[in-house]
Amino acid sequence: MPVYSPPVKDTRFVLDAVVRLDAYANLPGFEGATPDLVSAVLEEGGKFAAEVMAPLNPVGDAQGCTRHADGSVTTPDGFKAAYDQFVAAGWPTLHAPTEFGGQGLPSAVATAIGEYFCSANHSFEMYHGLTTGAINSLLVKGTPEQKATYVPKMVEGRWTGTMNLTEPHCGTDLGLIKTKAVPNADGSYAITGTKIFISAGEHDLSENIIHLVLAKTPDAPEGSKGISLFVVPKFLVNADGSLGARNAVSCGSLEHKMGIHGNATCVMNYDGATGWLVGEENKGLAAMFIMMNDARLGVGLQGLAQAEIAYQNAVQYARDRRQGRALTGPADPAEKADTLFVHPDVRRMLMEAKALTEGLRALMLWGAVQVDLTHHAATEEDRQTADDIISLLTPVIKGYGTDKGFEVAVNCQQVYGGHGYIVEWGMEQYVRDARIAQIYEGANGVQAMDLVGRKLAQNGGRALQAFFKIIAEEVAAAKGNARTNDFAEALEKANGQLQAATMWLMQNGMTNPNNAGAGSHHYMHMMGIVAVGLMWLRMAVAAAERLDAGAEDAAWLEAKLTTARFYAERIMPDAGALRRKLEGGAESLMALPPEMFADR
Amino acid sequence: MPVYSPPVKDTRFVLDAVVRLDAYANLPGFEGATPDLVSAVLEEGGKFAAEVMAPLNPVGDAQGCTRHADGSVTTPDGFKAAYDQFVAAGWPTLHAPTEFGGQGLPSAVATAIGEYFCSANHSFEMYHGLTTGAINSLLVKGTPEQKATYVPKMVEGRWTGTMNLTEPHCGTDLGLIKTKAVPNADGSYAITGTKIFISAGEHDLSENIIHLVLAKTPDAPEGSKGISLFVVPKFLVNADGSLGARNAVSCGSLEHKMGIHGNATCVMNYDGATGWLVGEENKGLAAMFIMMNDARLGVGLQGLAQAEIAYQNAVQYARDRRQGRALTGPADPAEKADTLFVHPDVRRMLMEAKALTEGLRALMLWGAVQVDLTHHAATEEDRQTADDIISLLTPVIKGYGTDKGFEVAVNCQQVYGGHGYIVEWGMEQYVRDARIAQIYEGANGVQAMDLVGRKLAQNGGRALQAFFKIIAEEVAAAKGNARTNDFAEALEKANGQLQAATMWLMQNGMTNPNNAGAGSHHYMHMMGIVAVGLMWLRMAVAAAERLDAGAEDAAWLEAKLTTARFYAERIMPDAGALRRKLEGGAESLMALPPEMFADR
Repeated sequence: MPVYSPPVKDTRFVLDAVVRLDAYANLPGFEGATPDLVSAVLEEGGKFAAEVMAPLNPVGDAQGCTRHADGSVTTPDGFKAAYDQFVAAGWPTLHAPTEFGGQGLPSAVATAIGEYFCSANHSFEMYHGLTTGAINSLLVKGTPEQKATYVPKMVEGRWTGTMNLTEPHCGTDLGLIKTKAVPNADGSYAITGTKIFISAGEHDLSENIIHLVLAKTPDAPEGSKGISLFVVPKFLVNADGSLGARNAVSCGSLEHKMGIHGNATCVMNYDGATGWLVGEENKGLAAMFIMMNDARLGVGLQGLAQAEIAYQNAVQYARDRRQGRALTGPADPAEKADTLFVHPDVRRMLMEAKALTEGLRALMLWGAVQVDLTHHAATEEDRQTADDIISLLTPVIKGYGTDKGFEVAVNCQQVYGGHGYIVEWGMEQYVRDARIAQIYEGANGVQAMDLVGRKLAQNGGRALQAFFKIIAEEVAAAKGNARTNDFAEALEKANGQLQAATMWLMQNGMTNPNNAGAGSHHYMHMMGIVAVGLMWLRMAVAAAERLDAGAEDAAWLEAKLTTARFYAERIMPDAGALRRKLEGGAESLMALPPEMFADR
Repeated sequence: MPVYSPPVKDTRFVLDAVVRLDAYANLPGFEGATPDLVSAVLEEGGKFAAEVMAPLNPVGDAQGCTRHADGSVTTPDGFKAAYDQFVAAGWPTLHAPTEFGGQGLPSAVATAIGEYFCSANHSFEMYHGLTTGAINSLLVKGTPEQKATYVPKMVEGRWTGTMNLTEPHCGTDLGLIKTKAVPNADGSYAITGTKIFISAGEHDLSENIIHLVLAKTPDAPEGSKGISLFVVPKFLVNADGSLGARNAVSCGSLEHKMGIHGNATCVMNYDGATGWLVGEENKGLAAMFIMMNDARLGVGLQGLAQAEIAYQNAVQYARDRRQGRALTGPADPAEKADTLFVHPDVRRMLMEAKALTEGLRALMLWGAVQVDLTHHAATEEDRQTADDIISLLTPVIKGYGTDKGFEVAVNCQQVYGGHGYIVEWGMEQYVRDARIAQIYEGANGVQAMDLVGRKLAQNGGRALQAFFKIIAEEVAAAKGNARTNDFAEALEKANGQLQAATMWLMQNGMTNPNNAGAGSHHYMHMMGIVAVGLMWLRMAVAAAERLDAGAEDAAWLEAKLTTARFYAERIMPDAGALRRKLEGGAESLMALPPEMFADR
């Protein structure tokens, strides 16, 4: 019953108008991404998402994964056949380097397709999504032999990857991990310990599973400075690349979760499993963060993706369902009632969803192209700026993107009234699935602290200055045009709130770091509002340019301008309230002793 | 594993300080409610909730209800035995009139206990909760014979009640219902039709189920002016009060829902079932609204109740779980990590939960005493004012109470990190259960329109004026005191935003009613912020008075003042942003044609 139609038209608009993919056509890493190819990839990827992956989404939710007595895990009906199709069609290879069998397309293209895959089937997409991060860690930190052994098969999709960080007693605070890595005589290590919440830790989709595992060597320093990263394959790999003995790593149980039932979330037991060091000893956290940053952007994308499919279904329902009459008099007098679309409060929820999904899509794709430019921009300065911007925005894309993604999914469920609460209509699954994105890969509170406690001040605030400079320039340019002037002024005002909040944090976070912590969530949301606002400015400017040039699709472009106006009127005002909250500081927040919270 | 401890101390504080139950001791309906009795009832009710009902909450979620081939429905293991205990202990009788076997205690007391029951087990509590509303409809609109036949057994709890409004094609728009009521020769009616989403429609807890059903007589006018209310018992009742023949009403199926699995949500088939008119023909909607208003207050309470149990568990987890270090340096150097309580962003979520649960509790109990005063206040003027206030606040208690209840449950789940997403920890059930409260008994968008489109202007705005007068008087009084001055000023400011928004609606809602609709959600939230703010002012004033008088529990009273300050700093700023959004008006909201929403 749920509908899904990949938003290719909107993606194309963003790639052209916001990301300006064509401007990078001459850079390495972008050569293959001709407009025709990108269009073909979007169309075909969208089709695969809608036709193959989406029908399995409710199946995965209803059935979940099954662990058998021997520790093996079966994915829901249809997942294996769909995954084989996924691999055969080459979808895992999009963004991977050509030297390892990838197509070498820009991250921005893979991200665009990743949204479709995740909208269609969040649980299914994760099996591949985490593999991408594992590949990147191996590419950056692995030895030539490790790369040759693992990466080509992972790129192909025949092998999948995982990240193993969390243990029962620690998630955020990885310095506390207990998993041990004891050196063997041959240079490998014997890994022993228990990891929990391991997505895709065991399943029947791929021939081998390559685990990246944080563990401590016997004489490692205490805390996070004593963590190393190991690669631990489910099946050892023979010299000729064929699969060897089964390694001593197994799934102890599957977690029962609120959502993403189609993905196998495993407790993984390492019983002296053979692993190899990736990168330097005791530098495991840095190596894992390559994977983690990639994963955080991917999780932000999940927030958008769930919001998008929830939105599409809510729009459909609001067009079909007749209930009540327009406040201004019957809109369809021949019918017994008007559609939900006549009701302003239904419109409010749908316009918020429209403004946020389109704005977040632009932010995600702009972020993705910064990842590309970090590697491929023409000058060192450009590479540096891209790296600064994406470092700054990663916690915002993850934290704000998933907070808003969840909120949109909840509002779109609300459009359905009572039917939204009923499983068969599909809306409640989007809410349950979207919820995890706020939690995993660093809960959103951790993202907020990463932004405020680390990213703001890094390199003397260089990244933030670059961000503010972009806004100032584009606001100034847009003020000249009657179509975009008001929006530019609204963004300038919201950005002024963000700058004032930044100043407040600088002045008060030093004297008492709790002031920074107490305002971190609010600051992250303010930056989200401004960053998405910048995207809406670009979309408005592009729409205005095309309208001025007499573009054919005038109504669609006018709708962009209307949605930008809605964003300024209905979403940006939160920036002022968030600033006031932030400036409340830590005092009332930290005053009460914990026991007082329970004394009621 | 989940904890629940009834917040008796806080309830007592509210009943004393905010509701001032003692001030009404001389009024009819309050005589029995001596402080000692109320304390005993709260203690015992809390104990029953914690010991009998709470342990069944996860059982009900995991097991759900079962419909058998004969249409009978079995509730989860333990529910029947617990319900028998519930009846035997007299819990259903608290607020019911003594002439029908009730204890005649004030609604405020029953509401206080109702919170505990619902925190402990939302699904279980609903079987009784809806019965209360059905009793009230029968008491007001039923014939003496109907009252005598049904009410005593329903008060006792041996029979339960339901409300049957929704049909597959209509929920909010009841004018569209198709269920028919054809007169029989004996004055009864034959009821035929299908009703959906009927909570507690069929189950094994009670001996009989009394359905109140909306249907249309053969020559009824079109739309909502042609709806009548009927009482349709599952078993017909003999003249001697014993159960007679099974009526032609049955459960066709159970809905599969996101949450409240322990409550049987039924599709009910009426196949010429025998029913009797309640009240006048074609005046059924008014009769049902007696039940509905009661139910809406009850649903608001569910929002608070889910927030409360989620909060209690999050507090416990934050005290137990050690992860990371305080930003200001280790708080527990002897341990490997500090508790979650040192982290400002965890505190932010817990303080929001504390401020909102305590504030909403006060609002719910203040609302309940208005219900009492509507019937029992000494003068006609006082009865009128109480009725005005509760009419005005009912959509706010329902809409704002459940929106914030859900938000708090989500934030408290967030405190658990990954464990919050795992079923066994219990937090995700609170989120799923809390979600329904925003949807049923009139989705929150319907509440917002009830407030803005009906309640504001009713009787020339008399209710709103009364509300503003209370605020003005109490703000003025609190400004004199150093302990409460700042809070009073903050409330005055937030109320100023609400008044400005009211003015805007008056000026712009007339010319275009869509302006009222477009701002209704924001207005409802503004009024929620101010109403809960008034409660915090009262709590602050009471705490200050007691501190000045040298009360023993100084730290606890100081905590009230700190929480009030937090409320002013972190929650009230939203009022300004909501006003700005509201003043955006309907234009950008209503501009786009529905098909444009799908063109992406």
